[in-house]
Amino acid sequence: MICPSSGEIDAERLWADLMALGDLTEPARPYTRRAFSPMFDSGRQYLTRQMQAAGLSVRIDTAGNLIGRLEGRERGLGALVLGSHSDTVPAGGRFDGVAGVAAALEVVRTLAEQPDRPRHAVEVVDFLAEEPSPFGVSCIGSRGMAGMLPAAMLAMTDEGGRTMAEGLRAVGGDPDRIAEARRDDIVACLELHIEQGPVLEAEALDIGVVTSIVGIRRIEITFQGEAAHAGTAPMHVRRDAGFAGALTAVKVRERAEALATSGEGYFVATVGITELRPGGSNVVPAECRLVIDARSSDHALIRRFTELIDADSRDAADQARVIRNGFLTLSDGVPAQCDTLIQSVVRQAAKSLQLRSADIASGAGHDAAFLARICPTGMVFIPCLRGMSHTPDEWATPQDVANGAAVLFEAVRLLDMQLA
Amino acid sequence: MICPSSGEIDAERLWADLMALGDLTEPARPYTRRAFSPMFDSGRQYLTRQMQAAGLSVRIDTAGNLIGRLEGRERGLGALVLGSHSDTVPAGGRFDGVAGVAAALEVVRTLAEQPDRPRHAVEVVDFLAEEPSPFGVSCIGSRGMAGMLPAAMLAMTDEGGRTMAEGLRAVGGDPDRIAEARRDDIVACLELHIEQGPVLEAEALDIGVVTSIVGIRRIEITFQGEAAHAGTAPMHVRRDAGFAGALTAVKVRERAEALATSGEGYFVATVGITELRPGGSNVVPAECRLVIDARSSDHALIRRFTELIDADSRDAADQARVIRNGFLTLSDGVPAQCDTLIQSVVRQAAKSLQLRSADIASGAGHDAAFLARICPTGMVFIPCLRGMSHTPDEWATPQDVANGAAVLFEAVRLLDMQLA
Repeated sequence: MICPSSGEIDAERLWADLMALGDLTEPARPYTRRAFSPMFDSGRQYLTRQMQAAGLSVRIDTAGNLIGRLEGRERGLGALVLGSHSDTVPAGGRFDGVAGVAAALEVVRTLAEQPDRPRHAVEVVDFLAEEPSPFGVSCIGSRGMAGMLPAAMLAMTDEGGRTMAEGLRAVGGDPDRIAEARRDDIVACLELHIEQGPVLEAEALDIGVVTSIVGIRRIEITFQGEAAHAGTAPMHVRRDAGFAGALTAVKVRERAEALATSGEGYFVATVGITELRPGGSNVVPAECRLVIDARSSDHALIRRFTELIDADSRDAADQARVIRNGFLTLSDGVPAQCDTLIQSVVRQAAKSLQLRSADIASGAGHDAAFLARICPTGMVFIPCLRGMSHTPDEWATPQDVANGAAVLFEAVRLLDMQLA
Repeated sequence: MICPSSGEIDAERLWADLMALGDLTEPARPYTRRAFSPMFDSGRQYLTRQMQAAGLSVRIDTAGNLIGRLEGRERGLGALVLGSHSDTVPAGGRFDGVAGVAAALEVVRTLAEQPDRPRHAVEVVDFLAEEPSPFGVSCIGSRGMAGMLPAAMLAMTDEGGRTMAEGLRAVGGDPDRIAEARRDDIVACLELHIEQGPVLEAEALDIGVVTSIVGIRRIEITFQGEAAHAGTAPMHVRRDAGFAGALTAVKVRERAEALATSGEGYFVATVGITELRPGGSNVVPAECRLVIDARSSDHALIRRFTELIDADSRDAADQARVIRNGFLTLSDGVPAQCDTLIQSVVRQAAKSLQLRSADIASGAGHDAAFLARICPTGMVFIPCLRGMSHTPDEWATPQDVANGAAVLFEAVRLLDMQLA
């Protein structure tokens, strides 16, 4: 039983879709439905059948996005796009991405069932390969729809030597006509997603109104010292690369805490990888490698953090008498700001359904961040159990999913009225 | 050409032995002659032939030590024992251990060639398996000679399930009569070894008079935090086990530097192993494991260091909001003090040969540390290139090796006169 705040959508039907898609997993490691795999194709066949049953016109664009479209009643208006991704990480969960696809499907299906069509066309999109793909790139479909899938990226290969272009063709895309995936007719894009963090649950909120989607910079720092016998090398002659790494890791934390509490925007930084070589208990480490993940709603904060850690890691190298022989930006994504009109519409939708909402920055990357380059974009977050994600334990309640879909439905109705 | 400070020993013959033993290596990874391997047996066959050619009586004791003995001219006196080990680490060098065996052989061979025998019996010993063995224990032979090879140790197995007792039998030992390896007749034991550190070379010294052999304690610290998304978990809610590890590693360095400069004895500590789990760039580390290697000439310093790091790692866990769920002593060896008479004799021997010597603490463990439990023991260090050891680049010059052997010869002559 799902309570009345789910509004006009059919919460039971939505939950049934979500569970049916969860069942489409590699049996040995639930929940796995990786892009470009046979199981991914099964998921899309399921989605295609539901879209067709709802009377939507279904196509795959040249960037491999699966699109179900309900035409609007007024000609010449742009489209409202709802969606997320149906692919998962290996041994991931049943909500990250697919909750947004299922909610979008339910919203468009409900709209199709009503006597009065929306003024605008409304599309449900399953963006291709949001998670890291075998080709080393994520958000392939939303990049394509934003016109950001250049030839160099299409030429990237998986471990078996297959190119992304070949992968695209296999899922129904057309790399030779990739430019056609670029859209200029979208008047608003809305993505529903689980929060993947603990804030909504901790504060007993139903809905997160996403204000920005973080930019993510990955920095690899390497230190080169000199291996030495752990017994015979006196402390003052050591060139201990591990010591430089530890000093730097402590600084990353201190700098991140200071930036996070500066009031200038959302900021987090993480040292998730620390590697020592040779890595024996009786050898002073000759090499140390750190990988830092820094995220912010404001690119200026990421730049400032990078400058601070650049200096800190040089100081650490000096203190440890080693060489900082690498300071490399592995990847860098610019933050995306959510459209203020869409934010206010989502806030209003939640209020009208008597749901508790609050503004929140997205600390994870999303397809919406790429769509924000080409159209007004927003996101609706729903709570998830203990902030867990990318694990089989990932969980959102039927009520949370229904609340989110109801907000999405209400937001679409409001946007359809307000937008040209 | 080796200069006259080599005294009465034959420096060319000694060097030839050393190079011949170096040639007895696994061809694919020089220099490898691991205990209990066929190549190790080849090395011992070479040593046995040389001992026999010098007229020594050769035996293998029940602990697997290869012993060549020159009887003394006075009955009822104890033995002077010279030796080290002929086994190597994988891809090690040509000097660590075997330089001490070859020097001992040359000294006893020279004594055997002289018209007047020493008063005491003099033995050259190749102690079995000083380096870490497949059974997880080092210094097997010297432990046995010191009566420290209990049944539990003999029952330890290698990866293939073979027991140390079986390994001992295969090299000619007798685990059933292991107690017979325990000696009470040794009046002095002297081990020559490369320094394995940079001090002698840096200070242009020929000879290190070893004052003590460090005790080594290995401590494993583990922290348990909680994995979280590197983007969506705000800094203040994180339970980052890697942060606790980095804080602790910095403290290890600071505490070690303070103890090393306290003037209370030799002290070093190393974090050679740092492991983060899950170890992904976009995941806050849930677990961190550090292994600390602490060494000192004074066990009280090791105990004090352990107490400090115990408290420091608890503080680090509190600061990172994680649990320090492990603080485990993996191994603990008590430091050995070198006999003061032997130290003074070595000093005197070096002086008589016009060699520059200085007192030095051994930062590495040695067979001599076990012999020190049962008899007056000393060590002679010779310089090695850039302090390198356990690498194919390990190097000592022919002159350095000859100097050391000459000091050993002279020290034996002095001890033979002075001891009862």
